[in-house]
Amino acid sequence: MCAPTVMDAVAARMTRRGFLGLLGAAALAGTVARAEKRVAVKGFTKVQDLTHPLSPNFPMWPGFDPIRITPLVTVEQNGFYGNRVDFWEHSGTHMDAPAHFDADGPTAEQLPVERLFAPLAVIHIAERAAKDPDAQLTPDDILAWERRYDRLPAGAFVAMYSGWEQHASNAVRYRNMDASGTMHFPGFHPDAAAMLIEEREITGIGVDTLSLDFGASTDFKTHLTVLPAGKYGLENLAHLGELPPAGATIIVGAPKHQGASGGPVRAFAVWD
Amino acid sequence: MCAPTVMDAVAARMTRRGFLGLLGAAALAGTVARAEKRVAVKGFTKVQDLTHPLSPNFPMWPGFDPIRITPLVTVEQNGFYGNRVDFWEHSGTHMDAPAHFDADGPTAEQLPVERLFAPLAVIHIAERAAKDPDAQLTPDDILAWERRYDRLPAGAFVAMYSGWEQHASNAVRYRNMDASGTMHFPGFHPDAAAMLIEEREITGIGVDTLSLDFGASTDFKTHLTVLPAGKYGLENLAHLGELPPAGATIIVGAPKHQGASGGPVRAFAVWD
Repeated sequence: MCAPTVMDAVAARMTRRGFLGLLGAAALAGTVARAEKRVAVKGFTKVQDLTHPLSPNFPMWPGFDPIRITPLVTVEQNGFYGNRVDFWEHSGTHMDAPAHFDADGPTAEQLPVERLFAPLAVIHIAERAAKDPDAQLTPDDILAWERRYDRLPAGAFVAMYSGWEQHASNAVRYRNMDASGTMHFPGFHPDAAAMLIEEREITGIGVDTLSLDFGASTDFKTHLTVLPAGKYGLENLAHLGELPPAGATIIVGAPKHQGASGGPVRAFAVWD
Repeated sequence: MCAPTVMDAVAARMTRRGFLGLLGAAALAGTVARAEKRVAVKGFTKVQDLTHPLSPNFPMWPGFDPIRITPLVTVEQNGFYGNRVDFWEHSGTHMDAPAHFDADGPTAEQLPVERLFAPLAVIHIAERAAKDPDAQLTPDDILAWERRYDRLPAGAFVAMYSGWEQHASNAVRYRNMDASGTMHFPGFHPDAAAMLIEEREITGIGVDTLSLDFGASTDFKTHLTVLPAGKYGLENLAHLGELPPAGATIIVGAPKHQGASGGPVRAFAVWD
């Protein structure tokens, strides 16, 4: 079966435009808001879950309380089981919506559904990150990926695989905070973020660490480059090292609660 | 482009078994837990979001408090925006995991990822439900669907479209409670649930109402037939009436928090 892909985003927009044109009559009847959206994903046979299980033990950004899961009823006592769940939106494998850093940006539930399906490019910097926890994904890393796999497809979701996920079961190690309180883990260099925003056409970026910016960042410049440009981020992604670096599609089960600055997602990669 | 489908679940299991056999050496190396899972979904160009936006106004099951969304930081005051979110797991468009009614059943985060991709059968009973809010989806409705679209594919997710979603913006109308406190909205008849569990091979069932059982149920027999059989349910689904009744695939962005009896999902239908 063919590797999945998503058609060029420009073509997608043209198709949508044409599609909406065809639906002119339906628009008058008030049904366009409900019309399905257009993407182009090829068939697939392989699925990888990109989502860490979320528990009170999952490493948090300093200063924010972990998820609380409180049973309200149990099968034994009530005939059915269920919990009240309480979390900071930026917990576990989660989305940063544009609104997280841009008061005028869309919240997670406002993102068009077709942007939750994107061609996935995984850029490996794990070898460097193993030696230097302050390693950052640079424009050169993007160019090296492109030399090998061709230019980033329009609409791509670009993920950094740093191997940092191996520390996710140990919050101290995952945050890797020094005596001065500065964290040390890999992230996207702001220059790479700027290149993706200005010279490529992306849907978003993702990392296998706590932050789009590297841990030692003081200015959050990668966040401030990507999110106000209307793109979204995914943090604490899992299993990126087990995917083809090119050719997979990411499917993002994004939060849909009102006013979401982001929130836990269920993300999948599909390919072949 | 061909309509999406998922291969026969028996074949899928055989494939997985063969696949795991091939991975014997990898298993010894401890990597099988991370291996990708196998499904077979054909290419698609159309996506429909099956998820209602979740706000404090979304109709709740009586006795349970709605979602609370509390801003902790704002771009204006803190440079970034985010909320604490607190909900009963069975709010909005959500999953009932087997553990919701079966103390020995899997919780939502334990469901194999390949079960979150399933061929979607939508059975329409909206005409009947418009006249009778106590309408139930019966074995005859399943047989009528099969006469038209062929036997339910193994691994199917079977959804009831009752048209009840039109009332979701009005909690009083959506719950439709009479003076005695009994609710009146459509659901799966327990005989239909039994047929699907005993005579077909399904992944789960879904409804565009508050409950898999119809509102007037006192014994929750549909829940008690489906969930302890290891299948999952989806409630408060949206836009089912806008899908092809056969030939779409459902993709379920299921909750992945620890011990989830269920929880809000982001669900998509994809086809063509």
